[in-house]
Amino acid sequence: MPRSHCPVASTLDIVGDRWTLLLIRDLLFGKARYGDFLASAEHIPTNILADRLKRLEREGLISRVPYSQHPLRVEYHLTDQGRALGHAVDALADWGMQHFPGTRRG
Amino acid sequence: MPRSHCPVASTLDIVGDRWTLLLIRDLLFGKARYGDFLASAEHIPTNILADRLKRLEREGLISRVPYSQHPLRVEYHLTDQGRALGHAVDALADWGMQHFPGTRRG
Repeated sequence: MPRSHCPVASTLDIVGDRWTLLLIRDLLFGKARYGDFLASAEHIPTNILADRLKRLEREGLISRVPYSQHPLRVEYHLTDQGRALGHAVDALADWGMQHFPGTRRG
Repeated sequence: MPRSHCPVASTLDIVGDRWTLLLIRDLLFGKARYGDFLASAEHIPTNILADRLKRLEREGLISRVPYSQHPLRVEYHLTDQGRALGHAVDALADWGMQHFPGTRRG
């Protein structure tokens, strides 16, 4: 249940922190494995990464897909709902490219 | 100077927290005075409000416009650059209305 009637506030309750939105950016770019996320330029701390992946899975924005059974290893893939956040990430990227001339899409 | 070449990360360095984006939502809706922001449903703490207004002004996203000289009282208005974040806020709102059926635009 959302805590607010405002769709912006409700969305931000889930993705309203820098690390979560950077993680969604990485997933949109096709990164899928724990090590891929750790390798991003912003150096997400491992405890935050583990927490955000759990939260995104709980909210139905990503799903865990095994790619090895022995030992069990998983990838993280955006669900359709998670992928739909691409519009917001795109809008943030567009704004950033206007505001910060040195930046470019990855 | 942005800390990153990524336009998403650079944008989130400025607006990548829940309170800042809610404040931009309020400004987009025409709220302009300190008390207006405090009255929003999410109850932003006064110290965070003061900090975020200062940061948004420093980054050129809002400007201070006096509406009374004695005593000096100011309103906060989005600059063109600040208003351009409306696309991102709209995208978050659109996603929220899909994800949380009970929500609606204010």
